[in-house]
Parts: sequence; structure tokens; C-alpha cells
Amino acid sequence: MKDKPKLVLAYSGGLDTTYCAVYLREQGYDVYTVTVQTGGFDEAELKSIAERAGSIGVVRHEVIDARTELFEDYLRYLIFANALRGDLYPLCVSAERVVQAKRTAQYAVSIHAEALAHGSTGAGNDQVRFDVAYRVFAPDTKIITPIRDQALTRGQEVDYLAGHGVEISSKIRTYSVNRGLWGCTIGGGQTHRSDGVLPESAYEMTASRKDRPTQPQTLKIEFDRGVPTKIDGQSQKPVDLIGKLNDVAGRHGVGRGMHVGDTILGIKGRVAFEAPGAVTLIGAHRELEKLVLSRQQLFWKRTLGEVYGAGLHEARFFDPLMRDIESFLTSSQQCVSGCVTVELLAGSATVLGVTSPHSLMNRDEAIYGEESSLWSGSEASAFAKIYGMQDWLTARSVPPQM
Amino acid sequence: MKDKPKLVLAYSGGLDTTYCAVYLREQGYDVYTVTVQTGGFDEAELKSIAERAGSIGVVRHEVIDARTELFEDYLRYLIFANALRGDLYPLCVSAERVVQAKRTAQYAVSIHAEALAHGSTGAGNDQVRFDVAYRVFAPDTKIITPIRDQALTRGQEVDYLAGHGVEISSKIRTYSVNRGLWGCTIGGGQTHRSDGVLPESAYEMTASRKDRPTQPQTLKIEFDRGVPTKIDGQSQKPVDLIGKLNDVAGRHGVGRGMHVGDTILGIKGRVAFEAPGAVTLIGAHRELEKLVLSRQQLFWKRTLGEVYGAGLHEARFFDPLMRDIESFLTSSQQCVSGCVTVELLAGSATVLGVTSPHSLMNRDEAIYGEESSLWSGSEASAFAKIYGMQDWLTARSVPPQM
Amino acid sequence: MKDKPKLVLAYSGGLDTTYCAVYLREQGYDVYTVTVQTGGFDEAELKSIAERAGSIGVVRHEVIDARTELFEDYLRYLIFANALRGDLYPLCVSAERVVQAKRTAQYAVSIHAEALAHGSTGAGNDQVRFDVAYRVFAPDTKIITPIRDQALTRGQEVDYLAGHGVEISSKIRTYSVNRGLWGCTIGGGQTHRSDGVLPESAYEMTASRKDRPTQPQTLKIEFDRGVPTKIDGQSQKPVDLIGKLNDVAGRHGVGRGMHVGDTILGIKGRVAFEAPGAVTLIGAHRELEKLVLSRQQLFWKRTLGEVYGAGLHEARFFDPLMRDIESFLTSSQQCVSGCVTVELLAGSATVLGVTSPHSLMNRDEAIYGEESSLWSGSEASAFAKIYGMQDWLTARSVPPQM
Amino acid sequence: MKDKPKLVLAYSGGLDTTYCAVYLREQGYDVYTVTVQTGGFDEAELKSIAERAGSIGVVRHEVIDARTELFEDYLRYLIFANALRGDLYPLCVSAERVVQAKRTAQYAVSIHAEALAHGSTGAGNDQVRFDVAYRVFAPDTKIITPIRDQALTRGQEVDYLAGHGVEISSKIRTYSVNRGLWGCTIGGGQTHRSDGVLPESAYEMTASRKDRPTQPQTLKIEFDRGVPTKIDGQSQKPVDLIGKLNDVAGRHGVGRGMHVGDTILGIKGRVAFEAPGAVTLIGAHRELEKLVLSRQQLFWKRTLGEVYGAGLHEARFFDPLMRDIESFLTSSQQCVSGCVTVELLAGSATVLGVTSPHSLMNRDEAIYGEESSLWSGSEASAFAKIYGMQDWLTARSVPPQM
Repeated sequence: MKDKPKLVLAYSGGLDTTYCAVYLREQGYDVYTVTVQTGGFDEAELKSIAERAGSIGVVRHEVIDARTELFEDYLRYLIFANALRGDLYPLCVSAERVVQAKRTAQYAVSIHAEALAHGSTGAGNDQVRFDVAYRVFAPDTKIITPIRDQALTRGQEVDYLAGHGVEISSKIRTYSVNRGLWGCTIGGGQTHRSDGVLPESAYEMTASRKDRPTQPQTLKIEFDRGVPTKIDGQSQKPVDLIGKLNDVAGRHGVGRGMHVGDTILGIKGRVAFEAPGAVTLIGAHRELEKLVLSRQQLFWKRTLGEVYGAGLHEARFFDPLMRDIESFLTSSQQCVSGCVTVELLAGSATVLGVTSPHSLMNRDEAIYGEESSLWSGSEASAFAKIYGMQDWLTARSVPPQM
Repeated sequence: MKDKPKLVLAYSGGLDTTYCAVYLREQGYDVYTVTVQTGGFDEAELKSIAERAGSIGVVRHEVIDARTELFEDYLRYLIFANALRGDLYPLCVSAERVVQAKRTAQYAVSIHAEALAHGSTGAGNDQVRFDVAYRVFAPDTKIITPIRDQALTRGQEVDYLAGHGVEISSKIRTYSVNRGLWGCTIGGGQTHRSDGVLPESAYEMTASRKDRPTQPQTLKIEFDRGVPTKIDGQSQKPVDLIGKLNDVAGRHGVGRGMHVGDTILGIKGRVAFEAPGAVTLIGAHRELEKLVLSRQQLFWKRTLGEVYGAGLHEARFFDPLMRDIESFLTSSQQCVSGCVTVELLAGSATVLGVTSPHSLMNRDEAIYGEESSLWSGSEASAFAKIYGMQDWLTARSVPPQM
Repeated sequence: MKDKPKLVLAYSGGLDTTYCAVYLREQGYDVYTVTVQTGGFDEAELKSIAERAGSIGVVRHEVIDARTELFEDYLRYLIFANALRGDLYPLCVSAERVVQAKRTAQYAVSIHAEALAHGSTGAGNDQVRFDVAYRVFAPDTKIITPIRDQALTRGQEVDYLAGHGVEISSKIRTYSVNRGLWGCTIGGGQTHRSDGVLPESAYEMTASRKDRPTQPQTLKIEFDRGVPTKIDGQSQKPVDLIGKLNDVAGRHGVGRGMHVGDTILGIKGRVAFEAPGAVTLIGAHRELEKLVLSRQQLFWKRTLGEVYGAGLHEARFFDPLMRDIESFLTSSQQCVSGCVTVELLAGSATVLGVTSPHSLMNRDEAIYGEESSLWSGSEASAFAKIYGMQDWLTARSVPPQM
Repeated sequence: MKDKPKLVLAYSGGLDTTYCAVYLREQGYDVYTVTVQTGGFDEAELKSIAERAGSIGVVRHEVIDARTELFEDYLRYLIFANALRGDLYPLCVSAERVVQAKRTAQYAVSIHAEALAHGSTGAGNDQVRFDVAYRVFAPDTKIITPIRDQALTRGQEVDYLAGHGVEISSKIRTYSVNRGLWGCTIGGGQTHRSDGVLPESAYEMTASRKDRPTQPQTLKIEFDRGVPTKIDGQSQKPVDLIGKLNDVAGRHGVGRGMHVGDTILGIKGRVAFEAPGAVTLIGAHRELEKLVLSRQQLFWKRTLGEVYGAGLHEARFFDPLMRDIESFLTSSQQCVSGCVTVELLAGSATVLGVTSPHSLMNRDEAIYGEESSLWSGSEASAFAKIYGMQDWLTARSVPPQM
């Protein structure tokens, strides 16, 4: 029947979205599934997702590779911003959800779908990221969210699918893992307590302590106006470079952590993460910036970078403020070119040194801690006197009580 | 002669301040030396400083123990602020210089001195910290700075002293080390380049890689309204607790780093640091805060904490803004009580978990990532819809061009 | 019957809350009405509200005078913060709603009520202010909102009340006016367009152009640590002082404006306001601060003041961040004492001059624009050289392309 | 003699710079004078300045018209930023000094001058603005500042000039006036006290009370991406449009004020200003922004705008941070197009209304204060519940003590 309404579903091949596909088909929709690749699936997984989509009667299954867009429109700015939530956690999932939602909505518009669906629960941030992006890119399209609405158990979903001829493993996974180019998050089990410690076996991208090399490995990472372009002299596309760093730094256990964060809905959540590439790159980029940016740039970039990270995390990516901050950040990167030497060992990526053609240090005359040829002692003395003028006047007005 | 003018000199016993003492004595001053203990000297060193002061004809040598004040008026707020310059470097020296200058100036006022001296060069931040604090606490006292004014070489100073009967080793130290309770800085040699790497032998407070334990050590650090009060259940005064952490975490090599920073005078400087206690405490405190502070508190504390750290670093400690931020920070710590488990290993202090009676997580009903009993799916859906209202309206006004 | 559940209703005597009272009585509740006086009612109005409450069968009607609390816990900080939304609009309504909701909730807890009600619609900010404050002060009490839930027209409400023996005028007012100590807002009619202009007749607190004095009136307003304490030398309690300024400045037409603001729910709203006292006080206080606060205090107070005003406006008053900002603000006011001369004329309150014992200006030596005895020309020259050092180094690294 | 070193002097034709020209000629320089027109001189004045330059033996006198550059590179961003120091004072002088210094320095480089001079005293901000811009654009050129160095009285300068055959009036002006396109400042006399009031006669650009029209005048000002482009439907270049507004709004006395500000050197200074065009434009632009920008844009633009204004005021214009903020501001103006109706009367420019094709208000469905078709009552209720979730959880953890 051509008359059935078209519905587009963001599809990962897992239990929840498979349930959605079958359930919505049964509700009378022509279901189109979309899997947006942001680095979380290998070829085999993509194939298996497509096969499952084929087996459950969807009209069409689309795979969209959004990795380059993910870098160009999102990760680029997270690097510029040195964005770490809580000074610790790279935004491993946020950006990927947003690009997935956006591309799914754009697909829905392109085929004139009447409805858009996603499989998020009502508990977390992803539902908001999906809803907001759907509304922005498909403002007139209805949003349907069976998992959020029905609040079924996994067992109930499995049973429903079985009743419709779909066999899906009901294996209870202890941890819920979200993986992408910018890292992965691990939730469940011990993360439900503020003091639970995950076992080594829960980690996927980073080597266990006992498997890590005992000798340090040194990398030279080059940046061109804030964008990482080379490792050890070899040019790479950013997406490939990040992938390579995930491997290399992951072998040293770099990028693991546990973070307690605030959700959009007001509760605290704790999550483990692994982000070898992101953690290595942000650390390297930050130290390069210290060499080439002005004191004032460093201060305001830090604050706006936090606003940017929060905006992406909290489903505010489409607020025009984010575009304004991107303009600020791009401007700030004009001189952020140079080479950073990073040492990987024992879970840490340590910056050993930085060089840049735009370095504001070592300009011959100015060597910190030594006599400087840039000014004389009496000039420094005069500077210090006037620099402290307001404090001196204030102290005369109101003597300090310390 | 009673008629000589009194001069008070901040005295460390080193070549520069010894030169100042002798030179100023020769200029006709009655020289009073003051050594302010902020954790950088052991008893033997203090004794040796006093002996040298005695040997060079000062009228009186005073030792002032300012460690408790250092914690109460400075380090306390650096912990509250999670203050790390450049997201890396605890303010190891800044606070100590300020308290040294302040106590020296107060002493000068108490003995009605006509002049105050310090031995800083004209190159760095310390001269400004000294000048500003001297002017604030002794606004009418003349400031004299022979080293800055005369720009002598070490050799010239040694010769001058020898000419006045003072023997002082002219051994050229490769590194200039400033040590105190909150850590030490190491400058010189490789730090004059942006990519130089210090040899292991340059470090004082942290064990070399080969000497570190191979097994992790776990500590439980307790905080009471932001102040660290116990390690592994044992109450300690903050000054002692920091000292102990310097030892314990130092054995694991925790707290080393290299930082490129902006000086007050506008040039960039690079410095190595070791701050085992500071790095461990700030990391623990920051993770505890994530559990008990509101999202908005975390954001604004982070920005104001950076302002506070910058103010202390840049000799703005006596700006009344700093008092206002201290009030903000103190208020913010009301619920920052709890226990943090930290694992020390291989140069890292990793927070394993946190508990607090004021935890905003795990309030039974709200478990992130699980269905929540705090709201229904339709409530979450309504929330997400209105939450994204302005983006939706904006997108209808100006469709996104991405 | 003693068994009926108790319900507490915030009651203004208007159509909406009268409908709520009768409707909820009919639903089987023992209805307690509370009117919180925040300066919006005169004695006659309070009496008339009480009479109406008596006529519709409420169990008890309570009047709570919260004017002093309004000043002490809210308006005080709005003055400290110089809080004007959009640099224009004093928060005329926000604070009053919050204190009304809080006191109503506290009353409900004190009588062990099972439910709390308010008469807000689902369109604006007030519903959120009520809901949040109810939940904070009565976390376990059910919230009931008939107007929001039922979306009745005014006519339907009038008919319902008539059917239950309550006569209430259905006169359609063109404008909805909310009045309190800190000013009033006027909505409706022309405010629904972004370019509508209200007729003179719509204003209540400020004289029309033709009725204003043609001669200026000068007032001397004194502040003690940020709190206004005297007008023309006469001590007054803040609540009375604000009331008096509403009268005096209102006669000159001071404090009118139109503001387009963002609601909590994401839409823009336009509102007219009259706030003679608030506008006069904030202008006076701001100019006094310029004389006594440091440059850095002025900058950060301005930003935090905006956060504070936004928080109060957006129903975030109970976020602990607000307490932290209050601590900051209180600290900042230590020297904000002095006298401000204000001229009222033709709709404007202009600050003519300011004096303060803590003035940082006119300290004899420092007269801006004249040769200063505080420093010499060569000291100024040295200062300027080092002050611009980083720009000079940057320009040598990357020549400006302007 | 061709061998004399070339010196370029920023020249205004007044006593100080004429003294500099003659004095430096006598010191053996070939003196080149440069007058940069930023709107402060009319044709007659420019001619008279050139004549004086000719009469004192300068090698060459250059007039550079920098009005368009002033708008494009400076005033444009001050409008975007709604920049008012202390929420009151448009930066009338700062931008003009910077562009004057920059163009003078560029001219010096173009003729390979060996020295650059300016006539600023050592007391104020202008010396720093000149020094910094000179060093940025002519990093290797010597800076000479006779007025600052010699600290002569006006009488001594007049005598010196007379001794060298230059007659210049020694008329003591009570006020020092700096005039340009963006307004004028008036210093001296009563401005040296914090409570002095200038006489009407001191003002130049704004009509006295008794001379102002008694009837309001209404203007329609149109903006295109933040730039004012039309008045009452008539297209004008920004420079001309500002000039016209200075006339029209000046006749109504708009834009007068007194401001106490912080100088770069740490003292407070008070200044009167007149800026009819600037005050009218910034008020209009700000209200237009409220209609078209997101809540978050408004907040961060306000803070960054303050940073921008402070940077320009404090001689930080060449810090690369300023370029980054300009990028932010330009991005933010994408939708700031529309028409603002302004009423001029009795010293005030009041915005009556605003329209924009990008208005986020009055999108049919969303009318503030009325029932909205954008959401239902139960959706609003759910939103408010989750919106207040963290406050509710916090209150359960730590009951509010208010």
C-alpha cells in the first residue's frame, strides 16, 4: 500500500531500536531506518545492522557516513575549546548524538516523512538531543518515541519481538557502552554509585594495566591553526589521525576516567569513559596554545570553551550562540600552529615540549627569570609601582584587616 | 649609633639577599632581616640562615612561621577554587611570596623602619608581588631593591661580599628552585626553551620513575566544607596533612609538570613544578564538588576560581575583588563535605570514587540511564519540547544552513 | 467534616484565584487562602480580598506581610547587583512571586496541608516560579493548578462562579497589571506587538508628560554598605524609602519603559513597566560604586549581577549559586557608603554627583588629566612600555594586518 | 642638511603639540606633522592646523582622513557590543586615539622615520594608547614624549614658543574638550571633584535645557546585520548617519552624562561627555537585539561586549583577543536587521518599538501572557517540574534555611 505514512527511525540495530522498528511497522507506518556512522561501528557491525533491518520489514535502510562532518562541525571546535566537562571528560557521546539526529531528520525531510522516531529512554540526555535536533531540522514532523512512552523492560521488548518473529538476544549486558570516534562511555553497574569502581574487563578502548608497555612512547603531533594534521611527520586526515591516536594511546591506557556530571533533566549521573585520542589531542593542543596565545585570549577562551562544551552536552548546539563561539574560536586559532611532543606511558599522555613559529617565548630578549634586555630595573620598578597603584590607594582608603 | 635609619630585608640566606644585607649595611642602614617560613625550609636550613644573618652584621634576624596563615588565608581558597594555572600548575610560589612580603612589611611597620628591601630581580613576577604587598602594608615606607637596580652578575656579588669579608659559595646551580608547602618550581636550563626536557635529577619532591612503587596505593581523603581534614580516617591539621601528602604522593611521582605561563610583565615563561600534595588535593576536591554542587555553581565557581588564581599569580591579591571571591567560594563550600578515594600510581593520582552526605546523586529515585521514578516518559517529552522551544522558533525564523 | 484534605491557595482576590478557590472547594478540599503582601495592595484592597475570601467558603484566610523579607532577602541584592534585565528593566515581579510562593508553601507545611495551589496560567514565568518554590519548601506536597490545567476563558470562569453563587465582575480589562514594592508591569494590548505603543492612560505609578513638574527636583540619597538609608538626610527603613521614591520619582515620570525579554519557556515577551523607586535607586547606587570599587570589582560584579538577575527572573532563586553570589555581593558592598545627588526631571533620574568617605578619587595626589604627583613622566613611560609588552611581542611574531 | 633624522609627530595644532614640534625641531629633527581626522575637526580647523604647521618649520604636514576606518574597524564593533563604560559612557575618545596613533605610526614607517612623538602628558590614558599603538605598528621606532618628560606648565610652553618666534594664545581654557565622531569629552573644573556639576555653557554638542524642543521627535533607524544604514527610510553611509544623529539628537540634549572611570594607571577619573549619536544608536541597537537574539546570545554578548569596551579603553586594542571578540560579535549580528522607532525629547532617546524580519516574538502561536498554542498546560507543568528538579533534590539534601 502506498498510502501508509512514512516514518524515519534512527537505528542502531540494538534491542530498543529494533523494538521501535517492529512496533511502529505494526502501528501502520512505512518504516525507514537510518544508521549514522560516527565512528562507533566497524564494517562488520554495519553489515549486521543492515541485515537486521532487512529482516524486520523496513522499507529501506540507509547508512550515512557522518565522520567527516563530525570532525568538521563538532570535534574541530571541541579541540579548539579544549573541551573537557568537569575538567576531565571529553564529550564522547554528545556530538555524535547531535549529528546522528540531524542527519536522520534531514533524511526524513528529503523523503517527505510524516514522522521521526528515536529509541531513547526518558531518563537521560539523548532524548533531548534527539528531540531538539529533530525539531530544528524537521520542524513540522511528528516525533515518536516508543521506548520513552512505554517504559518497557528489556524482557518485555524481547517477548514482543519474539511474538512478531524477531529473535534477538536478551543477554543482559552489565554495561551500556556508547562508542564513537571521540571515545566511548560505559554506564551501568558500579557507575550507579558514586564510589563504585569498574573492573578492568569493562573497558574496551584502553589496555589494562598489566597489558600496557613499560617503556614510554613519544609522539610528535602537529597542528595547523588548531587542527591536528600530522603524527610523527606524517600527514593524516583528522578523522584518521584521531582513529590512529585511539589505537596508539589506547595501548598505553591513556584516556580512562570516571565523571559525575549534570544531566539536562537536573539529576547527577556518573559514567566511565575511554577517550585515548581526545585526551591526548586536547592536552597537546592546550599546551601549544599557552605558547602562542595572549594572556587574555587564554582566559576568555577557557570560559567560552566551557560554555561551548556545556552547550553541546546540554542539547543547545543549535542555539545561535554556538555559531558565535565557533567564530571566536576559529579566530583564536590563527597562530595555533606548531609541534607538540607527547609521551605516552602508564595511562598518561604527558606533553614534553612544544615549538611554534608563532611562539611568544624565547624571543631572544625575553628570558623569564633572567635579566631581560627588554626593560631595565628602574623601568620594572616604575611598572610595579603604577601596576599596584589602585591597591595602594584602596589600602589608604580602607586599610586591609588581615 | 642610634641614628642610623632602620631597614627591613626579606632574607633567604642566599647570595642575592646576602648581597643586599651587606650592601645596605654599607649604605648606612641598620639592617633587620626577616625570614618567613612558608614550608620551604627545614630546621637545619633555618638555623643556617640565622647563622649567616648573624655573621654579616644585621641588627636583628627574625624568623616568622607563616604556615598556618598561608593555609588559612591563601591555600584554603586555592583548594576551594581548584586553582590550577593553565589547567595544570598549582600556584606553588605566588601565595608564598605574597605572605612573605606581607609579614615582612608588617614587621617593618611594627619597628618603625624607614625602608623595606627585597632581593628580586627585575625580570620576573616576584618583584611585583613584593612591591605591591610592601606598598599595601607599609604605604609610607621606602622600597629598596639593589638586585633589580644594579643588575650585577653572581660573580660580581660574590666578589663584593668577599671584599667585605663574607665568604659565600659561588657554585653555579643549574636550576633555581623555589620550595614551599604548596610545591616547588624549578627554573633554568631546559626551561628556557619551549621544548627542553629536564633530567630526572632536577626534581626534588617527586620520585624518579625507576624509584616509584609498582603497586598502587589508595588513600581516603576527607573534606569538611572544602577543607581537607583527614587522611585514612586520621584527623590532621591542614598544614600537616599537606605535608604528609607531599611525602606520600611524591613517592609515586605525583604532581610533576611543565607549564608555560604569562608573567605580569607580559612575557611568557616556562617552569617545571612538583606539587604532589596540591595536585592530589585539588583533584580530589574537584571530584567531590561534582557530586554536591549544582550545575550552575560548578560553572561559575570554575570561572571565578580562574580569576582568583590569576589574581594571586599576578600580584592582585589585595584587590578587594579577591575578598569578594573568597566570600563566594566560602559560601559555595557549605556542602563540600565527604570522602574521596584516591589511587596513587605511576605519577598519577586518580579519583576512584566519592561519597558525601550531601550527594545529589543516588537519591534512590534518580538513577541516570535507567528509568527514573522522578518523572514519566510523557513528562520528559514535554520538558524536551519546551526546552528546545527557542531553537525551534529560531530555526523557523532563520533555517540552519548546516 | 474534619476529614477533608487541606489545600492552601495563593490568593489575590482576582477572577482566576477565586475560580480556583471555589473549584477546589467543590473538589472536596478544605481551602485555606493566603495573600502575601509585597507592596502591591493597599489596606482597602487587602480588606476587600479578605471579604471575598470570606464569601466563598474558605476555611481560613491568611494575610502575610512579607515586605521586609522582600527587601532583606531579595531587593537588597538586586540593588547590590544593579540588576536591570536587558540593561533596562528592574525585576519588578520576579522577586515578589518567589516570596509569595515561598511564604504560601511554608504556611502549607505549618498546617500540614496535603496540597498547594496557584492560579497561574501555563503561558508565562509565574507558574514556574510558583512550582519551583512550592517544591523546594514543601517537597512532599501535591501541586494543583486549575487555571493551567483547564485553560478556561474568563467568561467560562465567570459563569462557573455564578453557578456557585459567586458574583464577580467580568469586565474585560485591556491590561494585566502586576504591582508591588519594586514597581509594576503592564501587559496586554499593544505589548503583544514588538512595536505597539501604550497610551498614557495605561500607566499607574508614573505621571503623564503633561502632568509632570517642569522644574527639576534634587534628592540626596545616602547608602550604607549598599543599602539606601536616607533621603535628604532623613533616615528611613528601606521599605518606606522605596515607597517614598516611588511617589516622588513617579511624579516626574521616572522609571517607565518597555522591555522585550526571554521567558523561561523559550518565547519572547514584551512588557511595559513602571519602577520609579527601583530605577532611581539602581542608577544612584551604580554611580556610587564607580567611586569606591576597584576596576576588577566593577567588572565581575557586573557579570555576576546579571547572573543573579537572570536567576531570580528564571525561577532559579533557590539554586545554591544564588547564595554564593549573595555572599560575593555583600562582600563587595563594604565600602559602598556615601551620598548621591539625583536630579528628577522629565522622566529621567540623573546622577549629578557622588561623595563617599571611601572615595578612590580626589585623593589629593591623583587628579586625572593633570600632572600627577603619584608618579613621574619617566615612570609613566616605563609603565606604558611594559604594559604593552605582550602586544609588542605579538606584533613582532604576527604583524597586524590592519 | 639631508642628514637630520626624521621624526613624525601626531599634531593637533594646540599648545602642547606645537611646543613639541618646535622643541623637537630645535633638537635637530626634521619634523613631519600628521593630523588624523576622526571627526573632531571641521574644514576651517584643519586649514588652521595646516597653517600653523607651516609656520613652525615642519618639513611636511599630512592630513589623514580616518573616519571611514574609524567606523569600519572600531565604532562598528562598539555598536555590535552596545559598549557603554559603566553602563553609561560611550567610548568617545578611546577609539579615536588608537586610530590616530596607528595611522601616525604607519606614516612614520612609510617615510622611514627614526622617531615618533606625541604630546600626551604622563597623567592619563592617551599616553598609553599612543605608546602601545606606536610600538605595535612601528616596533623599531624610538618614541619621544616631550610633554610627559618635561612636565612644563602651559605658561612655560608659551614662553618657550615666543622665544622661538611662535605666538600662541595662552588663554586658559577652563575645560579640556576632546571631540570626534563618536562624541566629545569635557574635563577640568568641576570634573575634578566627584560631586561637581558643570555649567550648561561647558557643553558643545547638546542643546541646553531651555533651547530644546518641547515636542518629541520620532526617528526610524534601520539596521542591517547590526550596522545602522537608514534614518527615516533614507540610506546613509554610517559616518554620515552618525553625524546626522549627532545633530538631530543633540538638539534634544540627548547623550549628556558624567562618568567616573578607572584609568589604565590605576586612579579614578571623572569626565563629562556628550554623545548624541552614540547614545541613540546603542540604545536602538540593543532593543533590536532583544527581539532577534537568543537568551544565551544576549547574556554572553553582554559580557564579551564589556570586555571589548574595556580593552579598547585600556589600550588593549591590539591584543588578538580583540580580533576574536570581533569575530564573535560579527557572527552574532547575522539576524540583527530591522527598524527601531526612537523618540527624542528632553535629553532622552526612548525606543518606542522595534520590528524585524527575524523577530522571535509574535510568531503567531507564542503570545506571552496568553494561553499559548505551542504547548498545553500539562506540558508546561511537566516542564516546570523537571526544570526545578535539581533545586528540589538540593532542598531535600540540604533544606533551605531561609
